[in-house]
Amino acid sequence: MSTTGRTEMGTTGRPAPPTTGPVAEALAALPLVDHHCHGVVTADLDLPGFESLLTEGEPWPGISPFDSPVGIAVRRHCAPVLDLPRHAPADEYVARRAELGADEVNRRFLSAAGTEVFCVDTGYTPEGLTTPEQLAEAAGAGAVAYEVVRLESVAEAVAAAEVEPGEYARTFEAAAWEAVRQPGVVAVKSVAAYRTGFDLDPARPTEGEVTEAARRWLARGGGRLADPVLVRHLLWTAVGLGLPLQLHTGFGDNDIRLHRSDPTHLTDWLHLTSGTIPVMLLHCWPYQRQAAYLAAVFEQVYLDVGLALHHVGPSRARAVLAEATEITPFRKLLYSSDAYGVAEFHLLGALAFRRGLAGLLQERVDTDELSLPDALRIVRWAGRDNARRVYRFSDDT
Amino acid sequence: MSTTGRTEMGTTGRPAPPTTGPVAEALAALPLVDHHCHGVVTADLDLPGFESLLTEGEPWPGISPFDSPVGIAVRRHCAPVLDLPRHAPADEYVARRAELGADEVNRRFLSAAGTEVFCVDTGYTPEGLTTPEQLAEAAGAGAVAYEVVRLESVAEAVAAAEVEPGEYARTFEAAAWEAVRQPGVVAVKSVAAYRTGFDLDPARPTEGEVTEAARRWLARGGGRLADPVLVRHLLWTAVGLGLPLQLHTGFGDNDIRLHRSDPTHLTDWLHLTSGTIPVMLLHCWPYQRQAAYLAAVFEQVYLDVGLALHHVGPSRARAVLAEATEITPFRKLLYSSDAYGVAEFHLLGALAFRRGLAGLLQERVDTDELSLPDALRIVRWAGRDNARRVYRFSDDT
Amino acid sequence: MSTTGRTEMGTTGRPAPPTTGPVAEALAALPLVDHHCHGVVTADLDLPGFESLLTEGEPWPGISPFDSPVGIAVRRHCAPVLDLPRHAPADEYVARRAELGADEVNRRFLSAAGTEVFCVDTGYTPEGLTTPEQLAEAAGAGAVAYEVVRLESVAEAVAAAEVEPGEYARTFEAAAWEAVRQPGVVAVKSVAAYRTGFDLDPARPTEGEVTEAARRWLARGGGRLADPVLVRHLLWTAVGLGLPLQLHTGFGDNDIRLHRSDPTHLTDWLHLTSGTIPVMLLHCWPYQRQAAYLAAVFEQVYLDVGLALHHVGPSRARAVLAEATEITPFRKLLYSSDAYGVAEFHLLGALAFRRGLAGLLQERVDTDELSLPDALRIVRWAGRDNARRVYRFSDDT
Repeated sequence: MSTTGRTEMGTTGRPAPPTTGPVAEALAALPLVDHHCHGVVTADLDLPGFESLLTEGEPWPGISPFDSPVGIAVRRHCAPVLDLPRHAPADEYVARRAELGADEVNRRFLSAAGTEVFCVDTGYTPEGLTTPEQLAEAAGAGAVAYEVVRLESVAEAVAAAEVEPGEYARTFEAAAWEAVRQPGVVAVKSVAAYRTGFDLDPARPTEGEVTEAARRWLARGGGRLADPVLVRHLLWTAVGLGLPLQLHTGFGDNDIRLHRSDPTHLTDWLHLTSGTIPVMLLHCWPYQRQAAYLAAVFEQVYLDVGLALHHVGPSRARAVLAEATEITPFRKLLYSSDAYGVAEFHLLGALAFRRGLAGLLQERVDTDELSLPDALRIVRWAGRDNARRVYRFSDDT
Repeated sequence: MSTTGRTEMGTTGRPAPPTTGPVAEALAALPLVDHHCHGVVTADLDLPGFESLLTEGEPWPGISPFDSPVGIAVRRHCAPVLDLPRHAPADEYVARRAELGADEVNRRFLSAAGTEVFCVDTGYTPEGLTTPEQLAEAAGAGAVAYEVVRLESVAEAVAAAEVEPGEYARTFEAAAWEAVRQPGVVAVKSVAAYRTGFDLDPARPTEGEVTEAARRWLARGGGRLADPVLVRHLLWTAVGLGLPLQLHTGFGDNDIRLHRSDPTHLTDWLHLTSGTIPVMLLHCWPYQRQAAYLAAVFEQVYLDVGLALHHVGPSRARAVLAEATEITPFRKLLYSSDAYGVAEFHLLGALAFRRGLAGLLQERVDTDELSLPDALRIVRWAGRDNARRVYRFSDDT
Repeated sequence: MSTTGRTEMGTTGRPAPPTTGPVAEALAALPLVDHHCHGVVTADLDLPGFESLLTEGEPWPGISPFDSPVGIAVRRHCAPVLDLPRHAPADEYVARRAELGADEVNRRFLSAAGTEVFCVDTGYTPEGLTTPEQLAEAAGAGAVAYEVVRLESVAEAVAAAEVEPGEYARTFEAAAWEAVRQPGVVAVKSVAAYRTGFDLDPARPTEGEVTEAARRWLARGGGRLADPVLVRHLLWTAVGLGLPLQLHTGFGDNDIRLHRSDPTHLTDWLHLTSGTIPVMLLHCWPYQRQAAYLAAVFEQVYLDVGLALHHVGPSRARAVLAEATEITPFRKLLYSSDAYGVAEFHLLGALAFRRGLAGLLQERVDTDELSLPDALRIVRWAGRDNARRVYRFSDDT
């Protein structure tokens, strides 16, 4: 009988990956490429500060963000990394965190994650967060970090610098080119899912349309880019840049209209941009099957289930991964944590990915539905090599 | 090894909850709050009568409603309550039911359900059904019942009383206020999902718009309220009443356009009504993950998977609950049966909820993903305390 | 303890169904009705030729279609049928295939599938494929084949024969009548999901609308029928023909806009056509729960999860079937493979269906949630008798 998914029962120390079975062992030993994440807060966090980073909602009176699947996962899997017993109470957890100090806490979680490459989205409120270099340094063991340029941030900076409407398109495109030319940049990202959703006219907007839309936006003083024409222009600008485009899809905070972030709304745009850039569907939950469909029928489409991994926790990561991989070609699945703010998430994402995938594949090996060499190949591809293949890190180092 | 989910193998007697494991024991002992259900038929039922209440469809020639997951669940779990062997044939089941008489049947199932509080929607064809008081009395053991006011029924009664279009808004609002002022009323409910779906303009309609829509509706003689402006007015009226608003979402009969009952279509309305009333998403299947997203990012949103529990049966309740709880804060999950007409459903809902949740949580305790005290807290919250917290029953008793 | 889902560990020979448990034995012994499939290629296939039939996408440089769940399933379950070890490498597999020759390969897989009736969609690029008769002959053991008429192909042939716009409706209807009058025709099919999606005006178009739409289409030279008015006309023509209508829903190649193939968009049309023809929802993934809802509330709706079965492979077929059957009346579930081009899929579909359903039902029998006689009845109905009941094969033989 397989013991897949069972864990060591010690009460402190490093979080134990499933320790039996060759697939779990291979995943435990594999340095991961986390192809989409963010920095972590460099300051010490008190309970409210930590709780506010624990949830995609807001902290609400009378409801602790610890009372959620991700809170349970933090107390279970992260407490031992801080020398606390498993399932330590929330206040003890945050007190111990403060006692150790942010640097030590970050170092512990990031090194425990076993990640060798971090692709860091630097465009979302980066103040007070580690830079990509600091993140890699905290992880130690030769980890490196690359940068992902968030195109909405570039566009909003252009607007803030007071451009003429007729110059917006060229200025934004030039700024995007300038941004991606910086050393270490491996991808661009769009949060179109948050701004308009994907049920957009797929066609490239005309110069006149862009100028007119820019005029309206700039007249309002710029700010949050949510005009459908300008979002379309941004996506088409990404096509021209030539780098892989990461797209937030599915689950996020309440700025999302979830049903409009179903990536199958991108189908016509994917037809129009076929043969150009890789399109990396991030997170996807609860549309992981829809994302898998796109990855199965469009050469340029890839997917991960980041963010969902730590929010659903290790108990459900396997189920989510099982759906995400039902029809996905093995070259199309990547790992990301989408961790933001607290290094616990960099660890939990990696842990949930390793356990979920190990549980899934080991069971198939145990029932002889999958050969062990094939399972190990899938592990290496999904955890590291697919990202290396798409992002071509060697070109940048 | 956990034996969660295994059942006692006796062939008659009370339906056996999973009998091993402390989580199952806690759930078996916990009196539930069923925060949304209906009354049961007080007359004896023959086979066609019983079958017509067994399905959300219609009984069809050549297809017995017993030949479905819910039919299997009735024969398996309800037959022993009537002193029949498990899996008794449908005709024997209904004959025994008639032999015992409706009162005794209702008493047996309702007392076996272990429900201490019933919140009863009295607005759907209440003729021939128990009143809330009768329902609680049949359950015995000090059970109490509260009332949920279905706002569409209030509006349709206003129309039936021949109101002037220009007076409709005020008259409906006054009638709604009058209805919720009655003793024992703890919530209001809308079946907007059936009438228009949720892809509505989220804004509060103007007085002029309401008058004009009322004019059209009343000119047709009133009846079924399905005008989008009047449905919006109804939802905004609910906001003013201050009580929790229960919303049917997802699965129902074929009046539903299922895709329009996905609750994420409510996102803009939830933004506009933030900080006002609790919004209770009922049933949700197959959109339980979408509902969970809303519960995770909107303070006022809660959910259950009632109706689905007995229709999918105990064999799948765990899977549905697992999806519904993937990211749901533990304060946001409630229990309801949505039982209507036959008391079997009040029992099956409770049974499926207890088994499904016990199976889910006990496995996590067994693998040390969740501490037992946390599991027991989640049990108490979801089964009883979250509903008490939202509905504040003590104010009414 | 049940050993459901475990397989014989021999390395060559016929693919082993789960060999323990009476449900698995019943399914292994039951000749299936495959109510929707296609022919197989009669020529020998080289590696690129075989790979191009393995995927709903295109073969892409650097990514073998074998590196996918269906590729794993072929190497695991089909290699032994060609006397190769389980998990044989792709190139060895295709070489052995060529060595045996297409006739022998097809004979082996089709006879191993244990299918007694094939309903063959002859409308999709039938050149180079077996006819229905050849397919049945290759299966041996008295297998028979019936024909499914693809209405889009009939309409496109009418356009190719240069009809006047004002004559299109009548000519198409006559051609459809002529097609279904042929011996052995048991159903019609539409790929409206590919052409427009289901979010169509449900009403029957007027004669004038059809003429005008035909004028536009014919002026462009006919070809692929994708005009919404003509697709609606086609669906309404199907209603008049009186035979069951098979509808592709969900997963397919990248011509699909997946979200528009959610069958719940058909709700209004199902209301309008209630009491006329059976509507067979094919494939459905990832909308199997939505399809189940329709089957539960509309008398005329049936479903299968063909195509998904071999693409997700035996490892996930049970999970997909579990969702598809959550609320589906047992008279409404059918089996299809939707195999096209390679006979491996006729076998894999049957294998995944048998294992998935056996795993699902045997577990319920083992935990006494379902009686064995009921389980065996569900097996016979879903695998054979529901199709016999809907298609009334005896009228045609």
